[in-house]
Amino acid sequence: MADEAATITLYPTMNLLLLSDRDLDGEDRAEIRDQRVDHVRRILRARPGDRLRVGRLGGELGEARIVSLDRERLVLTVTWGAAAPPKLAATLVLALPRPKFLGRILQSATEIGVAEIVLLGTRRVEKSYWSSSLLEPAAIDRHLRIGLEQARDTVSPAVTVERRFRRFLDERLPRLLAAGELVVAHAEGTDGFPADASTVAGVLIGPEGGLLDHEVAALAERGARLVGLGPRALRVENAVSVVLGRLLFA
Amino acid sequence: MADEAATITLYPTMNLLLLSDRDLDGEDRAEIRDQRVDHVRRILRARPGDRLRVGRLGGELGEARIVSLDRERLVLTVTWGAAAPPKLAATLVLALPRPKFLGRILQSATEIGVAEIVLLGTRRVEKSYWSSSLLEPAAIDRHLRIGLEQARDTVSPAVTVERRFRRFLDERLPRLLAAGELVVAHAEGTDGFPADASTVAGVLIGPEGGLLDHEVAALAERGARLVGLGPRALRVENAVSVVLGRLLFA
Repeated sequence: MADEAATITLYPTMNLLLLSDRDLDGEDRAEIRDQRVDHVRRILRARPGDRLRVGRLGGELGEARIVSLDRERLVLTVTWGAAAPPKLAATLVLALPRPKFLGRILQSATEIGVAEIVLLGTRRVEKSYWSSSLLEPAAIDRHLRIGLEQARDTVSPAVTVERRFRRFLDERLPRLLAAGELVVAHAEGTDGFPADASTVAGVLIGPEGGLLDHEVAALAERGARLVGLGPRALRVENAVSVVLGRLLFA
Repeated sequence: MADEAATITLYPTMNLLLLSDRDLDGEDRAEIRDQRVDHVRRILRARPGDRLRVGRLGGELGEARIVSLDRERLVLTVTWGAAAPPKLAATLVLALPRPKFLGRILQSATEIGVAEIVLLGTRRVEKSYWSSSLLEPAAIDRHLRIGLEQARDTVSPAVTVERRFRRFLDERLPRLLAAGELVVAHAEGTDGFPADASTVAGVLIGPEGGLLDHEVAALAERGARLVGLGPRALRVENAVSVVLGRLLFA
């Protein structure tokens, strides 16, 4: 919150202007010609001379000065400086949610700083969800970017799709468990959250209707930790923030 | 997840059918004639003889059996049983958010089990927010009920409005601090989250643009605890779940 008088805080959803290599002309000059120009002009009401927080996709954070700005073109000079904030070491394994909620969940997980997200198929994930256009890489990427802009981060989490639960059990789960604990949020879980959150390699959030008993049993047999969230059934998006937040405070 | 074969899980947002005293005809019979009839018929595809989880607003949970169901009328017999899940002992003090986000935040906080919510005025809360129709009691109540239905709770949190920050400092803050700690989520906070979350009497989440320095100082002087959330700026709705979730796992 320091420096807010000097640097315009991008508002309402853009705390950071993300620049891709394509926007950059050399190391310290950027030229933008897409809808971000309109955002900077009309939402931020920025003018030549104003300074903006910027980030290079996959790279550093910096501060930019607006050299020129008209309806079509924004030119910036950039001073690069800080590294992007560190990521959480844990993977979010998420039963594919109803597509209309997916974007907001990806955004929240990105804000919180998850480095990797696995969209998982379980029995109660409706088949129709897998053919949603909202699962296309461009749609996913759009939400990840919004999360990065909000959290002032530059590195998108890696999102992978694992539709087959069995293959998750056989291939990915052993790798996760080799790295640490997998916390499965489960209504009837009796384990507590690990006292040392840094031992958590992954967090698994089931679908709206819950995991089936045999899915829970398969996870538990292989060593996953069934953590109860109490008698309250949370919406998936709320559960994701609640459980990942537990790692943020570790 | 036990008993799911026998009891229809209300889907997608209603895990519980809430009954008010007006719906009840005696202690164990209910008759409903509003949009819930349509929900039960068309979304749940329930039929006479099916069982539903029900709750009495402000009271117990129970199981209902559908006696009759047509386009206009749903008649249930109810067996009351369990108490509503316990509430969190902490109050959520929330700088009034952009009204279009308020509903979802109230819903999340209700799901998590907050007993009391204070909507607070701070300098960076836009004045126009206070005249939004979404702040009317009926609008607020609608979102609280959605949260109750999701979390299978029957007791709405008490929502109060405190537009004057100064009055909050003078009147409500001392009461909160007499009951325990007030955790203020603050980008530059250096305090950790209290090791024993049961000592937390309240959690304060600032507005999108943050609290002003003098607001933070006034809170700190009076004994609030400034807890840093790290370098990541979270959307307000995400921050609410992340911080309240910390109490859920206590």
